[in-house]
Amino acid sequence: MTHEAGRGLSRRGLLGLVGAGAAGLAVGGTGGAVIANGVAGIGTSGAAASYPFFGEHQSGIVTAAQDRLHFAAFDLAASATADDLRELLADWTFAAARMTRGLEVTEDGAVGGSPLAPPDDTGEALGLPAAGLTITFGFGPSLFDDRFGLAARRPAALEPLPRFSGDALDPARSGGDLCIQACADDPQVAVHAIRNLSRIAFGRAAIRWSQLGFGRTSSTTTSQVTPRNLFGFKDGTANIKAEEPDAVAGHVWASASDGTAWMAGGTYLVARKIRMVIESWDRTRLEEQQRVIGRDKGEGAPLSGGTEFTALELDKPDDDGTPRIAADAHVRLAHPTVNGGARLLRRGYNYVDGDDALGRLDAGLFFLSFQRDPAQFVTVQRSLAGHDALNEYIKHVGSAIFAVPPGAPAEGASIGDPLFG
Amino acid sequence: MTHEAGRGLSRRGLLGLVGAGAAGLAVGGTGGAVIANGVAGIGTSGAAASYPFFGEHQSGIVTAAQDRLHFAAFDLAASATADDLRELLADWTFAAARMTRGLEVTEDGAVGGSPLAPPDDTGEALGLPAAGLTITFGFGPSLFDDRFGLAARRPAALEPLPRFSGDALDPARSGGDLCIQACADDPQVAVHAIRNLSRIAFGRAAIRWSQLGFGRTSSTTTSQVTPRNLFGFKDGTANIKAEEPDAVAGHVWASASDGTAWMAGGTYLVARKIRMVIESWDRTRLEEQQRVIGRDKGEGAPLSGGTEFTALELDKPDDDGTPRIAADAHVRLAHPTVNGGARLLRRGYNYVDGDDALGRLDAGLFFLSFQRDPAQFVTVQRSLAGHDALNEYIKHVGSAIFAVPPGAPAEGASIGDPLFG
Repeated sequence: MTHEAGRGLSRRGLLGLVGAGAAGLAVGGTGGAVIANGVAGIGTSGAAASYPFFGEHQSGIVTAAQDRLHFAAFDLAASATADDLRELLADWTFAAARMTRGLEVTEDGAVGGSPLAPPDDTGEALGLPAAGLTITFGFGPSLFDDRFGLAARRPAALEPLPRFSGDALDPARSGGDLCIQACADDPQVAVHAIRNLSRIAFGRAAIRWSQLGFGRTSSTTTSQVTPRNLFGFKDGTANIKAEEPDAVAGHVWASASDGTAWMAGGTYLVARKIRMVIESWDRTRLEEQQRVIGRDKGEGAPLSGGTEFTALELDKPDDDGTPRIAADAHVRLAHPTVNGGARLLRRGYNYVDGDDALGRLDAGLFFLSFQRDPAQFVTVQRSLAGHDALNEYIKHVGSAIFAVPPGAPAEGASIGDPLFG
Repeated sequence: MTHEAGRGLSRRGLLGLVGAGAAGLAVGGTGGAVIANGVAGIGTSGAAASYPFFGEHQSGIVTAAQDRLHFAAFDLAASATADDLRELLADWTFAAARMTRGLEVTEDGAVGGSPLAPPDDTGEALGLPAAGLTITFGFGPSLFDDRFGLAARRPAALEPLPRFSGDALDPARSGGDLCIQACADDPQVAVHAIRNLSRIAFGRAAIRWSQLGFGRTSSTTTSQVTPRNLFGFKDGTANIKAEEPDAVAGHVWASASDGTAWMAGGTYLVARKIRMVIESWDRTRLEEQQRVIGRDKGEGAPLSGGTEFTALELDKPDDDGTPRIAADAHVRLAHPTVNGGARLLRRGYNYVDGDDALGRLDAGLFFLSFQRDPAQFVTVQRSLAGHDALNEYIKHVGSAIFAVPPGAPAEGASIGDPLFG
């Protein structure tokens, strides 16, 4: 490696923080050592939770879904070289590991440096706890084109997603060379993370698109209450949970035997910005809403009977012999039994991006899923895109896929190490 | 009154909920009585907090600033009459009083009505506590034009704000006939409130613009820690606090002697969307950031010395005889002593609205202040607009002013009653 990851930010990273105009200044406050923590799950709960950055897998995947999200996709600068990319990922690793501990991006970075230099850290998270912050990095398919000599390293599974029926994608809200998912129980902490990582990238990479999410729409542990999406329905009841080790191992983590050795312990992230046509939905009668979803709205129980966590009985007929869960119900078409067993770890967020020209809230679901193979998502989404009764009320407007490498094992390693072999 | 406020939603309000297409349906679930609460301050803290809707003043003003905001400005429909306006405000009162108790907009409105009708309530807050929700209503200057026969009722103090030096206002993000400020400790609860009040208004009023805020930037009680804005500085240290009854009475609540009898117990709300040029700010050296603000960044202490809550010494010189707090420092120009004693109750929020075409975060401060007389804001803003060193790093892009009527005193009263006399 050309850069000693874990020892501090690179010169380029520091230049990003202080700005090109200050390049001649000596800048201080770069000596902070990362407090490595190899123990899985030191997190408690609430604002005081802290999750380890280093480990076999990246945090922010099977981690209990935090309440808030700031997600950003980045494109590398036209001038960026492979060395720049490697250095950027080492810088991001250094800063991310610190921030997930509730620390500034460099030691005393907000106010402890030279008064004659711009602070290394923007400071709005000063005094706030870690708030369960996790920072998860991913690599888009475009990173493996001919710019950085990585074409041969491209995971075979990492292809741009196919076009799905009904897609209305905005290219400016789709794709990206790199992504960062910052989740926390305090939005100020998540925003601080994306902002400071974006500063560090200055001159090397810039935000292509970003998304704030205000409410989680999935549980990833059995201890979490199932949240509701903006259709008012419980979402993620049947999600993969951290407490299901076989499901996590089988459906979430990539293995060397999948064909790309460096992705072992990693996973693939799909992001879909799904606008909800909430005015139409809101005028649909309750019975129809429940038929479309295939669950009752109050309890979240399948229409085939039982309570929230009762398994679906897809063939159970009504008195007149038709299936209680309709042929085009969302839960049926998303169910593993109709998708060759495919399951996803969902980790999406509700969003409201203000309002549109007609005075309607611009709102929906920022869908995020993690899966061992993108084919799992493609299978489920093909099933939904073709027939889901919910399609009348949603529009997919953004899309991206990223290879999420395994965790950096310990201090001194970079999240980019597996990429370069 | 033509409408029995507090007994249920009007027929028009229910039509808004179910949609024009369902006008012929009988709709159920409208009998819910509002649980009135005249006791000031039953709120505790955190997610379980609940503030009374009814009372002398509206909640959401001196109420301990909650963490999250959804604010919306509405315009009346071209077809709306004075009766429509009166009925809308009664409907909003009914629904708001319920939601601030953690209830649905009508009794069992999310799932307990007829399955053949659209639910009265959109349901995404089902199972969530009140989360400290407050809903605060205001009337814009345009409400008092010739459309509703209210010209003679217009408070003399309610004029459109003058143009300030440097204003770069977007008319589409400014003004409005009516406003609703929803604050809560859970953003899903605040979003649910605005969404459902917007539904109730269907056919009578529509959202003109709206804004989500993710982090409070002011304390309104002495028990709250001073938060930080996106410049990384503590904000609102010198704010009016609920525990200062003389300041609240003198600077926040309008009185009959101010010239508009029906505004007694009300106040005036100014909203300013202030975009921060955070990239430029982030490249400014710490010393200069502190000089611009007039406080140190870490502690929030005035540059004239002391700790966070030490009073400013505006004349205290440095060794070379120049004032330690610069002539153009933000805290100096905002200080009551240079503004004829004018003070504001600030209650703003940090916002991030995604990113712009250059890959920069579209972020800033959604400034909200409450004052007895808009002239207080005008005085302070004239002082700032002309000379504030901070102007290099901010841009005012939205602006609005509203008369905030007194609280509806008890169940059965409408927030609109004082308007119609």
